[in-house]
This record gives sequence, C-alpha cells and structure tokens, in this order.
Amino acid sequence: MDARIPAGESALDPAVAARLKRDADGLVCAVVQSRAGEVLMVGWMDDEALHRTLTTGRGTYWSRSRQEYWVKGGTSGHVQQVHEVRLDCDGDAVLVTVDQEGPACHTGTRTCFDTDVLLVRDLSPDR
Amino acid sequence: MDARIPAGESALDPAVAARLKRDADGLVCAVVQSRAGEVLMVGWMDDEALHRTLTTGRGTYWSRSRQEYWVKGGTSGHVQQVHEVRLDCDGDAVLVTVDQEGPACHTGTRTCFDTDVLLVRDLSPDR
Repeated sequence: MDARIPAGESALDPAVAARLKRDADGLVCAVVQSRAGEVLMVGWMDDEALHRTLTTGRGTYWSRSRQEYWVKGGTSGHVQQVHEVRLDCDGDAVLVTVDQEGPACHTGTRTCFDTDVLLVRDLSPDR
Repeated sequence: MDARIPAGESALDPAVAARLKRDADGLVCAVVQSRAGEVLMVGWMDDEALHRTLTTGRGTYWSRSRQEYWVKGGTSGHVQQVHEVRLDCDGDAVLVTVDQEGPACHTGTRTCFDTDVLLVRDLSPDR
C-alpha cells in the first residue's frame, strides 16, 4: 500500500504545483487520450501522481476508491507510455497523451467510454 | 442567476441518474472533444446540466466558481452543438463530442490545453 503523499511533501516541480487548482480532495482531473485521438479514460492525480507521471513516463493516478497510487498497467500489463502532458487554462485538469498497450478500460474494452451511449444526434457533415 | 437544482429534482432520465457516480459536490467530469478528435475543455455537470445537455443539444455545465449553470457560448457565441454523449465505465465522467463554434477556451485559444505543456517525450513513431 502506497500511502498518500501530501502536496507539500511531493517532489513535483513547485512551479507546476503553484499552477494546480486542486479539488477538495487535493486532486486534478486527468484526461487520457491516445495519440490517435481517442479519449481512453479519466483518472485523478494529486501532486505526487502527476510528479510520477512526469518523471517515469508511465500514467500514474490516485485511486479514490482504493485510496492508493496506481500505475496504469501495473497489474494488467496495459501500460501507458506517456507522450505529452498539458495543463488546462485554469489548472484543474491535465491532458495526458499516451501510447496505450492493450485495452485502456478495466472491463476489457478499448476505452472507458465504449459501452454507455447516452445520446447521438445527427449534425451537419464533419467539418 | 440560475440556482442549483438538486439531483432528486432534476428531470434527468432516472435510468441515467442511477448510473452516475457523483463527487462530493454532486458533479461528474465532462470531457469535451471536437469531432475532429481534439480535447477542447473539461467542465462539470450535475444531473440538471447533463439533462439540459442531452435535451437541448447545447453543452451545458455547472460552474463551480460562479455556482450557476452556464451554456457554453451563451455570452461568447462560441456554442457547442452536441453530437454524442457517452458515460464511462464507472459513471463519474462523460465524454461529450461536439461541433465547437470558435475557440473553446475563454482565453481565446482553440482548446483549454493549448498553452501549458508540462512534458513532451519522444516515443516510437505513431501507431
């Protein structure tokens, strides 16, 4: 069990830490996208998970349900090689571009958004 | 000012509401992607914002800072025509595919992730 490291004790670059706008749990939203453009999953990062993602090049998150750090693919082998990490304009979300090995979703589907479609609307042709 | 509508009073389809896993503030994360594949922004939705998005076809969010509903483009004209809405495997995030009119970011950039690059790593060629 890898216990939570408080933001102030993380080795995350202080210049980056200063730009984060964390939620009440100290987390920012991490949107994970394949280099081909598919949104694969959403995870959550505290300062330390972001630090590990930036320094190891492996997508690393804070599990809100298990209350521990997890490296994507650590048990499944479905690792994420991180290509880019970008912070959004108000500092509460990061976009992580990856090469995803195997399915991104723990259910075995390619993305976590593959199965539950709430709406499809016809629009004018792609533009 | 459009005051918060409690989840139990929203007209959101109860079958959808039952699948949402809301955070402590009653919100799910909304990842907004253009049909071309760009991740444009991250917003937050409560039941009512999701209901309005699904029924009006305009990206509608709950502003955590202003504590009010907002329709993207309501003041800027940079509206989002919603093409698809998908719920993720654990019910705490939706992926909204849109046609975005003009820049998605309130700073005037095309996406909210355009300016603050934390990491770029070389990987093997695109695959």
